[in-house]
Order: sequence, then structure tokens, then C-alpha cells
Amino acid sequence: MTAYDDLTAHIAEYHDLLCILNTLKWDMRTMMPAAGAASRGRQLATLTTLAKSIFVSEETARLLDAAESEVASADSDSYRARALQQIRDAYEIHRRIPSDLVAQMAALGAESEAVWAKSRTENDFPSFKPYLSQMLALNIELAEAIGYEDHPFDALILQFEPGMTSARLQQIFAELKAGVLPLLERIVAVDQPLAIDLWEAEYDLAAQKKLCRELTALIGFDYERGRLDSAPHPFEISFTRDDVRITTRYDANYLPMSLFAALHEAGHGLYEQNIAPELTRTALTTDFLGQYAVGGASYGAHEFSSRLWENQIGRSRGFWRLHFNRLQRHFPEQFAGTDAESFYRAVNRVRPSLIRVEADEVTYNLHIMLRVEIEMALLEGAVSVDELPEIWNAKMQEYLGLTPPDDRRGVLQDVHWSFGGFGNFPTYTIGNIMAAQVLAAAHAQMPDLAAKLADGDYQALLTWLSENIYRHGRAYSPDELLTRVSGEELNTAPLLDYLEHKYSDLYGLR
Amino acid sequence: MTAYDDLTAHIAEYHDLLCILNTLKWDMRTMMPAAGAASRGRQLATLTTLAKSIFVSEETARLLDAAESEVASADSDSYRARALQQIRDAYEIHRRIPSDLVAQMAALGAESEAVWAKSRTENDFPSFKPYLSQMLALNIELAEAIGYEDHPFDALILQFEPGMTSARLQQIFAELKAGVLPLLERIVAVDQPLAIDLWEAEYDLAAQKKLCRELTALIGFDYERGRLDSAPHPFEISFTRDDVRITTRYDANYLPMSLFAALHEAGHGLYEQNIAPELTRTALTTDFLGQYAVGGASYGAHEFSSRLWENQIGRSRGFWRLHFNRLQRHFPEQFAGTDAESFYRAVNRVRPSLIRVEADEVTYNLHIMLRVEIEMALLEGAVSVDELPEIWNAKMQEYLGLTPPDDRRGVLQDVHWSFGGFGNFPTYTIGNIMAAQVLAAAHAQMPDLAAKLADGDYQALLTWLSENIYRHGRAYSPDELLTRVSGEELNTAPLLDYLEHKYSDLYGLR
Repeated sequence: MTAYDDLTAHIAEYHDLLCILNTLKWDMRTMMPAAGAASRGRQLATLTTLAKSIFVSEETARLLDAAESEVASADSDSYRARALQQIRDAYEIHRRIPSDLVAQMAALGAESEAVWAKSRTENDFPSFKPYLSQMLALNIELAEAIGYEDHPFDALILQFEPGMTSARLQQIFAELKAGVLPLLERIVAVDQPLAIDLWEAEYDLAAQKKLCRELTALIGFDYERGRLDSAPHPFEISFTRDDVRITTRYDANYLPMSLFAALHEAGHGLYEQNIAPELTRTALTTDFLGQYAVGGASYGAHEFSSRLWENQIGRSRGFWRLHFNRLQRHFPEQFAGTDAESFYRAVNRVRPSLIRVEADEVTYNLHIMLRVEIEMALLEGAVSVDELPEIWNAKMQEYLGLTPPDDRRGVLQDVHWSFGGFGNFPTYTIGNIMAAQVLAAAHAQMPDLAAKLADGDYQALLTWLSENIYRHGRAYSPDELLTRVSGEELNTAPLLDYLEHKYSDLYGLR
Repeated sequence: MTAYDDLTAHIAEYHDLLCILNTLKWDMRTMMPAAGAASRGRQLATLTTLAKSIFVSEETARLLDAAESEVASADSDSYRARALQQIRDAYEIHRRIPSDLVAQMAALGAESEAVWAKSRTENDFPSFKPYLSQMLALNIELAEAIGYEDHPFDALILQFEPGMTSARLQQIFAELKAGVLPLLERIVAVDQPLAIDLWEAEYDLAAQKKLCRELTALIGFDYERGRLDSAPHPFEISFTRDDVRITTRYDANYLPMSLFAALHEAGHGLYEQNIAPELTRTALTTDFLGQYAVGGASYGAHEFSSRLWENQIGRSRGFWRLHFNRLQRHFPEQFAGTDAESFYRAVNRVRPSLIRVEADEVTYNLHIMLRVEIEMALLEGAVSVDELPEIWNAKMQEYLGLTPPDDRRGVLQDVHWSFGGFGNFPTYTIGNIMAAQVLAAAHAQMPDLAAKLADGDYQALLTWLSENIYRHGRAYSPDELLTRVSGEELNTAPLLDYLEHKYSDLYGLR
């Protein structure tokens, strides 16, 4: 297998460079003194360009051709065949994207993100508009370069979510709306403000950090192969499965901020830490299009793991029944007058709100649909950038019954469009759907899973997830993985069942 | 200046890669979970090889040739001319070193360092011997490849200390011995154990860290462009002047450990932070032979700055007269029964000791001479690896009047030889000599410097050092810099004067 081995060695070195880029990004967001930003920017640019030139080189083409001839007869489901397929697909797409366009997007993205940040602070959409228009035009160019059959959005989402299309998304959204909007209406009709405000207290940051570490270790995050740090925008990033870094953020007056962000990022981390060791430094832990060392099947699949551990485990009644005493141990005064059930209810309160990142499980996907529908309309030219605030506010009213008082809390709230991340928003909703579908499958295959979770034994679930999902890295698509565990491709029914069941109970809707 | 600019852009990208390597090394020593070591090793190897291939490429040769023709008429002292000279010198040397030899040294070094660590712990020199013999043979090969006129040591020291030779070192050592040995004898004759042991207390680590930060900020380390972390072996490293990281180590029962290591590393950091901004990402902040982004004129010159701030400022009576109250503020109970003068005396006690890194200012250079004399003898074949423990112990007896009870506290104590760092030890002594010479020159040029230092105004000294030394990066050799400020090349007299003056006073020898 000489040719395949040669290609593998070549990809391993390319993968090393992507792990190094990840290290630079982690450092930039957690450790770097502010004045280091300009130098770091140049270092990132130099290494990104170098990595790309190595991937799109004639050498890759030569090694790939040779390896393909050698492996032609291999089982198409084998890791080998999948690795070759991914390298080939990415290589062809990379070659279709003019390097001029990449450079233009990178240059505009850096400027545009800074303009966006300022315009959000100053609630000044008009000054962001020209940048957004340019970024939209470049994304349309990118979509044309990548190519698509039906809708330009299909080309863009391909970067994050193989197998997903605008047509499928529209079907998914219709199903979700049909289930979620009536549920939300029933909840809003009976929702009452909490009797006491659990969060009117100070929570020592060092104690918060200890608690975050305890809870993430409890669900299986391996601190021998990872770290927890703080970052203004929490994230997870890895430099192989043996070095996985998670972050959270701390609010001295609001404990759930750090706890649930830590559980969320640990959920991402569990995916990376449990990829099969033999996939380390291979195509199956490489996102070639994003030039990013990451092992999940897709961005949505990665989000499945974070949301499963954050929400379906971390926001469950059973979890807090078992672990509320930890809160009391770290914060005896703050939690003296309350109990596990009150805490469970407080961290699951459903309320239509303006800001996506603060949304609850029921309303969250409505925020995503709104964005994706707008993105699609922008890409097909049905809506202009000028009309954005208006259409945003109309959809907010339609889905959530709220009208943002200003663009800061409306169309300007997310960073994504400023740097050109078109096509990325659906991955959050795909993650939510997949989490419910996978957990339902796990319960179906392991009749004693509920009892184990109720006892605080998370290892059984982690092992099952590792064997069925995590270990394969990027070898199989989300639909393939879902079909293996549940017999079906991505399906909204389990998520709608989960929401109906949990919130009917919580709000006494039955 | 097209050709020169093209070369400059090429070197800037090479420099970015070296800054990235530094970031990976910093992370490895301060943040990385232990399990990440194997992946990190591969990442370092991949990027080191890639960087080298970029530097020794035909492209570098072509750009360098063109730039040299263009700049031929430039002033030979200009930054431009110096940059070209350094690139040319390094390029020629790099091409003389077979890449096989580099790979062999790297592979053996990693293994050998692990064997050394084990053999030191187990006091087992015989098991380290074969590795050291191989490493010595490879260093002799390296010296032959680099080339030398007089002694193989001259080729090896060239990597760290341009302009230094074995002949000059022997002269320097003779002068130091003639001054230091009689002084040490006089001190030992009158030295008394301290009346009280200052360190029989607990020093809270968080308070130690605050104090280290305060003291390093006081001498001018800029935390807007730097950080302080903890590391088992303290070091300084930078990724341009705008991101300079220092480390220290903490001992709960011995406060001077963290304080003086922090001042030492901050001294290194001050050098980097005060290099002229226009030298950022240029040949004049690049050690091409070591493939290391570092801005000092030489390794000895870097050590001059660390030792000046650690010892000549940080261990001075005036420094503690002013700042002893800070110790008392952080550790009120521990320092209740003592005063600044006692502290000053305690941290300057002179005693012959077995371990280099714990040695005082008077005995320190004797430890270095011993090592360098042995290295030279090994390289010329006058001494064999078998004879090492014997010759080590004999020299310890001759210079320090002590015989190590075992090899662990003798010939096995330093890591340097295990990974092949032959030629590096003299830089510590060169730093000590240069520190005294530069500070004497500063006092001569600024009659009010003593008064300013006595008032705790360190900015005047920092500004003078920046203007005269730091700002030039690697543009001028240590001898050139010293000649500019003192009228003389490296000269042992100021160091001997400083030691004589300080310790005669401290020990009442007059």
C-alpha cells in the first residue's frame, strides 16, 4: 500500500499544520495579550496560506491519483475509501474556488467584522450595510464557484453539512414550525414569573470554575487529555484527541452561564476525545474545506454532541436531582432556600426572547429558521440588504411575537454574516434534531439506560455514543450515522416528542 | 528596492513560522495536558522541517543574490547590510550541515534527554554514557561540517555567540579565576550561618504571583504586551515584541525562588519588548541557525539583560531598601521579625555549592568554567566520556573545594549535553561579564543614574539600555555594542570590580 501510505503521510503533515492553526487560535482567544493581535494575525495568515498551498499542490494530486488506483477495489464503506473520497471531493472544490476570492473574503471579513462590532454597539445598521452587501456578493460568487443544482445556499451549506440542501431544510423547518409554534403558544399562555429570583446573589468565580470542572469530569471529559479555560465567547478546539481544550465564561451574578456553557463545550470535547486513535492525523479528522482540524461528521453532528450533553442530560430533572447538592456545597448561602426542582425549573423556563444565544430549547430553533430563511432570500435576490431590518422584525413578530426595539437586539446581533459565514446557521438546528434522535435510539437499544442515567452513570451513554458515532470521526455522514443507529435519516419527530414531553410536564399542559 | 523588499517579505514569513514554533513551545511548557506531548512533538517536527526547507530553498538563494547586488553599496553598519550579512552567513552554514546529521541529532536528542532524566533520578551515569558518547560524536561531526580554524568548540559556540572563540574564552576564564578564587577564599573564611532562617515559613502561591507581577512591572516589563505564567523550568519566549511571555516557578517554602526567577526572565523580556518596532519579522530578530525567533545580539547578550535585572538591580541593597515593604505587605507574619538589610544579606549569601542553578554571583562562573573546560577537552579528545565523573569531581574540588557525593549532584545535573547543546554554557558567563560592563558604562554616561535607581526610577536605565543595546536587535555583535557604550570589547574587569566591591562590603572584608 505504498501510494496510499505516501498520501497518508502527506495528509498527516497537512493535518499537523491545521492543529497548529488551532493552537494559535486557542491561544489568541484565551491567553494572548491584546497587543499581540496584529502579529498573531500575520502568523495565522502565513500558515493558512502555506497549508492551503500544500493541500492544493501538484504533489497532492499525484499522490491522490496513485492512491486511488491502488485502493480502487476497497469496500466503499471502509475508512480508506472514505478518506480518499473526502480528499478527492475537497481537492476538486478547492481548485474550483479562485484564490483571489479567498483572499478577498479574508480581507473583507476582517474589516467587516470590526465594522459590525462597532455598528452593533452603536445600533447603526446603515454603516454595516455596504460591508454586508459586499460580503453577500462574495458569497454568491463563492456559491457559483463551488457549484449547485438548485439553490446557491446548497453550495454554501456543503462546507459545513454534507448531504443537506435548501429543499430538505425547508421541509425540516415546516415540520418544526408545525410542532413548536403551537407548543410555544400553550406554554406562553400559562407561564408565570418565577416566585423567587434564584440568581440574585454573588457566585465566586473560583468556585464556579471548580464546579464546571467537576460537572464536565462527571460526564466523562478527560482532563488528562484536556483543559478548561475562560473565554469571552466559549468554544471547544482540539489539537488531536489527546489535547482537547474547552472554555466557558463566568458571570459573577448568573451561575447558569458558566455551567451550561461548560457542559456544552464539554459535549463537543467528548466527541473529539473519543474518536478512534487510528484516525489521528488523517483525512477523517480533517475539515479540508474549512482548513480546520476537527473530527466530527459535520458541524451539525458536532453540535448534536454539545446539545445532547448540555440540554438533554445537563438540563434534565434527573441530573439536578443528583447534583444539586454540589451547587449547595459550593454555594451554601446562595442555595440555602431552594431545592433541585426549583433549580431545574429555573434553568428550563421558556420565554420568547430577542437574543438567539439566550434562547431556551423551545424557541431556539425559531431563531435559526428566521436567519436561514433570510439568508436564502438574500442569496436568491428575493430580499435586498436594505430590507433586512424590516424582514427580520416581521419574522420575529411572526415566530416569537416580539419586535426588537432596535437593530442591536435584532438584525445586528450575530457575528456570522460579518465574516461571511453564510450557510452555517442550520447546523445548530440540525444538532438539536440529531441529539433527540440519537438519544432516543440509545434508549431504544439500551433498556437500562434511563436507570443508569438516573443513577449518575454517564459512562454507559458515553461508551455507546463513542462506539456508534464518535469513533468514526468524519468517515460517515450524519444521515449514515443516524440510519445505523435509528434506521432513519435526519428526522424531526424525536425532537418534537422530546420537547412536547418535557415541557408539557414542566408546564402542566396535560 | 524591489529585490530587497522581496527577500524581506520572504524572511518575514519564515519568521512568522519561527514565532509559531515559539508559541507551540510556550504552550507545551505551560499549558498543554501531559497526554498532548506526542502530538505536539509531531507538530513541532513538521513545522521545523517545513521552516528549514523554506529557508534553505533555491528561492532564498535567488532572492538573496538579487538583494545583495541591489544593496551592495549600502553602509556596512546599516540594518539593511547587517540583515543581508546574517541571512548570507546562516544560509551558507545551513547548507554545509547535512540534513541527515540534523535529523540524527534531533532523533537522538529526544531519546537521550529521556535517558538522561532517568539516569539522573537513579544516579546512574553508566546508562547515560552511550548516549552522551553518540551525542559527542555527532557534535564533532557538526563542528567539522560548520568548519573552524583552531578548535572544534569554535564552530559550536558560533551558533550562540558570534565572535567568541575557545582562545578568547580561555583568556577570559584565566582572568576570572585570578579574581574570583582569592575573593571566594576570603569570603569562606569569614562566612557565618545566618542568625535566623528567613525561609522557615509558608508563602501563599497566589500572593507570590502577585508580588512577582508587581516587581517585574516595576522594572518596566509591559503586561500589555506580555504575560507571566508558571513553568517547572522558568524561561522567556516571544512571538514578536508585542507578545512576550515570561514564566517563573513557585516554592511554597522558599520565596526567593519565584522572585528572582521572575526578575531574571523579565530581564530577558525587557530586551525583546524594547527592540525597535521596524525590526519585527526581520532577519534582525531571527536566529537562523537555531531556527528561533529571538531578538538579542547573542545568547550571552540576552543573558546580560536577565542577569543585570536579576542580580545587579534585583539583588542590590537599594532595591530591597525600597521594596522590602512590599514583601511585608504580602507576607506580614513571615517578615514581621526582620528587615530589608537582613533580607538583602540572605539573598546574597556566598557559599560554594554543588548545583549550578543554585549558585550565588561569586561562585556561579566557576561552575560554568568547569563545564566549558570539560566540553573543550571532550571535543578535542583529551578526555573520554568514561573519565567524565572523575574529571568533574576533580575540578569541583579545585574550584569550589567540594566533591559531589554522587553523579546526580555532579556530572549528571545539567540537561544540556543530553540534547546536544554543546557550546552553549559560556553564554551564561558572557552575560555576567557584559552585565557588569554595560551597567558601569551606563553609570559613567549618566551621573545621576545611581540617584535615580536609589529612588526606584528604573525607567532611565531601561531607556538607556533600549537606546544603546536593546533596540538594535541582532544587528550588532556583543563586542560592537560594548565598544559603542564602553569603548572596549568584552572585558572581565567591571565584573571583578563589581564582585569585589559588593562582597567586600557585604562580608566586611575591608
